[in-house]
Amino acid sequence: MSDAGSLQKIRTMLGDNGYIDDPVRMEPYLTSWRNGWVGKSPLIAFPSSTAQVAELVTFCAKNKIAMVPQGGNTGLVGGGVPSQNGKEIVINLSRMNKIHSIDKVASTVTVEAGVILQTLQTYAADAGFLFPLSIAAEGSAEIGGLISTNAGGTAVLRYGNMRDLIVGIEAVTADGKIYSSLKKLPKDNTGYDLGRTFIGAEGTLGVVTGATLKLFPPLRQKVTSILALNNPAMALDLLAEFRSKAGEYLTAFELMPHAAIKLATKHISGARFPGKDDAPYYMLVEFGSTSQSFPLRVVFEDLAGHALNKNQILDAVIAENEAQAKQFWQLRENISESMRKEGQGIHFDISLPLDQIPDFLKNMEAQIKTVSPIIMPVPFGHIGDGNIHYNMYFAAPSPNFPVLKKRVQEIVYADVKHRHGSISAEHGIGVDRKAELLSYKSADEIAMMRKIKHALDPDGLMNPGKIFD
Amino acid sequence: MSDAGSLQKIRTMLGDNGYIDDPVRMEPYLTSWRNGWVGKSPLIAFPSSTAQVAELVTFCAKNKIAMVPQGGNTGLVGGGVPSQNGKEIVINLSRMNKIHSIDKVASTVTVEAGVILQTLQTYAADAGFLFPLSIAAEGSAEIGGLISTNAGGTAVLRYGNMRDLIVGIEAVTADGKIYSSLKKLPKDNTGYDLGRTFIGAEGTLGVVTGATLKLFPPLRQKVTSILALNNPAMALDLLAEFRSKAGEYLTAFELMPHAAIKLATKHISGARFPGKDDAPYYMLVEFGSTSQSFPLRVVFEDLAGHALNKNQILDAVIAENEAQAKQFWQLRENISESMRKEGQGIHFDISLPLDQIPDFLKNMEAQIKTVSPIIMPVPFGHIGDGNIHYNMYFAAPSPNFPVLKKRVQEIVYADVKHRHGSISAEHGIGVDRKAELLSYKSADEIAMMRKIKHALDPDGLMNPGKIFD
Repeated sequence: MSDAGSLQKIRTMLGDNGYIDDPVRMEPYLTSWRNGWVGKSPLIAFPSSTAQVAELVTFCAKNKIAMVPQGGNTGLVGGGVPSQNGKEIVINLSRMNKIHSIDKVASTVTVEAGVILQTLQTYAADAGFLFPLSIAAEGSAEIGGLISTNAGGTAVLRYGNMRDLIVGIEAVTADGKIYSSLKKLPKDNTGYDLGRTFIGAEGTLGVVTGATLKLFPPLRQKVTSILALNNPAMALDLLAEFRSKAGEYLTAFELMPHAAIKLATKHISGARFPGKDDAPYYMLVEFGSTSQSFPLRVVFEDLAGHALNKNQILDAVIAENEAQAKQFWQLRENISESMRKEGQGIHFDISLPLDQIPDFLKNMEAQIKTVSPIIMPVPFGHIGDGNIHYNMYFAAPSPNFPVLKKRVQEIVYADVKHRHGSISAEHGIGVDRKAELLSYKSADEIAMMRKIKHALDPDGLMNPGKIFD
Repeated sequence: MSDAGSLQKIRTMLGDNGYIDDPVRMEPYLTSWRNGWVGKSPLIAFPSSTAQVAELVTFCAKNKIAMVPQGGNTGLVGGGVPSQNGKEIVINLSRMNKIHSIDKVASTVTVEAGVILQTLQTYAADAGFLFPLSIAAEGSAEIGGLISTNAGGTAVLRYGNMRDLIVGIEAVTADGKIYSSLKKLPKDNTGYDLGRTFIGAEGTLGVVTGATLKLFPPLRQKVTSILALNNPAMALDLLAEFRSKAGEYLTAFELMPHAAIKLATKHISGARFPGKDDAPYYMLVEFGSTSQSFPLRVVFEDLAGHALNKNQILDAVIAENEAQAKQFWQLRENISESMRKEGQGIHFDISLPLDQIPDFLKNMEAQIKTVSPIIMPVPFGHIGDGNIHYNMYFAAPSPNFPVLKKRVQEIVYADVKHRHGSISAEHGIGVDRKAELLSYKSADEIAMMRKIKHALDPDGLMNPGKIFD
């Protein structure tokens, strides 16, 4: 219980710069920005070191005070803010923002949990490396949170999710012990890989305080293109072909339906489509290479020419320079924004087995038409990861929006479950998707998760009420 | 307890082809081939399906019968054979050897746990794919065991360990429930990633019954070379340079000291060194590309020429054809064998932070000389993974071998621990390294492992006495 005496001890432990408890100043840390969830808390702690996190967690564990680990608070499912019971303290890692020096030989960097993603990207680039994780919120999102939600983003096709970028982890367990595998060893088979337990656990098993992350060589050549297609099935065939023939270069493979191009060129100032926009679907395809010893464009042109001859694509436009490549990306990156400008929207963060995508899209389009003819699905995004942004906008404002949205959600989630897809490809469960999780996972799976939770946090003090109750 | 009544019920459950209990026929399944450990068991079960594994485990759990999951029984630490108490039944997965069809679009294959690695490699190659995991025991080792030990091998530098090759897992938990994530989803953030719990757990948390694995495009061009160096530090500088400038091609980066070349050319018929063998160290470096649109050799020659000019290497020989490439690999692959032929040996399966390797090797050489001048360390192998095969041979037979071996082990493990290396890079803990694990890991880490073990296997029936007691 966070009684007055305990809170005073926590304040003393953290020092003057180590906490805030003024309701006005606390507000941003208690609000989940996208879904508008507002929690309550007696205090936001800003520990300055792993040792201090351990001291704080030990104290809270002893006094049965619940804790909510928090990073940049950019999560989309309410996983990083406290509940409304007002008893949980927030442990915000933002002050722990040191980047330890890069290990150039191992090609890794060790960081504290509060380092902002964009800061790390820039730091790595300045040192001649690439840290490939990239998401829309990268200007605020912090490494600890990105680990706790196993963040995805635009570079997953080539470099993997956050999980794949982690070499070692440091975390404070629910009983206040410091666990560390910041040892930078690519090979280490000495018992259970405990560090991985914290990845994607949304702060329910402990507080991630640091990590050793993989770095990659920068891409010194890029070829950016837009390819025209008849349908998503052609995109999957093309993916298989490109992966096979030039797998090591494939950096982006993004689906954009005709409607998405129309919306982007309509709403985004300066956005324009290169060539005729008369095909039903387009792919933004990017190749990248670390090497400068040969023209990558030749590799791409070989493949694209071959695909044209075999009618695997209808047309191909290759960016002639970096400015044009940016124009291509501008189309892709503004689809969400232009949909928002067009009207009310429904969004999904789903993924599907790749071979299910064409049939899913066809089936959904037919079913959603029966809900309302004004709901327009515009599926786009990381088709190579099975991670379609299955978003839709309303062609006209509807007073029935909440009811229609619920109907659409039921239809989409039922079909995703039926096809063994995921109801949360990237964003996690948090509080927003707890109900769906129960109907999506088997009772045995939920029971196994609870066993692990109970083993590592028997009193349920770590981010209570997140993922499951 | 495996009393007569229970055993009879298990026999009936499995059917005539589903078990053996004849002591002579059981022997190979009770013997750990390298360390000679021989266990005892009333029965080896050969279930034919995941449902049957679940039925068997449920029955054993109910009747408190301990179980030892087993694959191809090629493990090197005694993790796959039962203890000598004679009460544990072995669950051998070899009959479950179906390869389900390849998903060409997702570039994955789903297999049962009993599939032999070499069989899978061939199957993938026939379908136009590469399954990159490769280890010496690949003709017998099975997928379930490779997952349970997180196998490594020669392709880790480019493709990662077994852990990195897994998309989904099917396992039977200690209470007989079937857990499955064979869903082929690259992106799925719906709660704890339970499947990963079983990777590297050496069968102590459940029985791995199947997996969905990543496939890669085949390499259509290779450049194989031997580069001469003065010392291991030069190898690390070269690694950083090659990774940065041609990271996507680097397939092998293997250290071979002069002594290793001498031994291989002495003992292995037909082995010969290309060029002068007067440098202290050599690197076997291989580049590979899926693309045929440009000559990969140009990329390599650019880099090697640059390295020569900057004195980063002393000399370079490039294989002119596949036959010569095979000769280069013959040297590397026969180092262990030629050391065995030379004399008594001591072997280590250690890994180190890369930047520690040069100093470790220098320090060890000096210290081992003080133990005995006839012990000759020949460090070789996957320096790019930090995974040096730190092996040594005795220049003359020694009656003191066991004593000297123990002294050397103490020296090496102490230095590895001091440098935050791993005492088991690839082989796991099993029974052989339990004692070392306790002195190597912190008490908190061991306690956390035990918590997970207790949560998922409260009665301690799954592979008891492995990893820890």
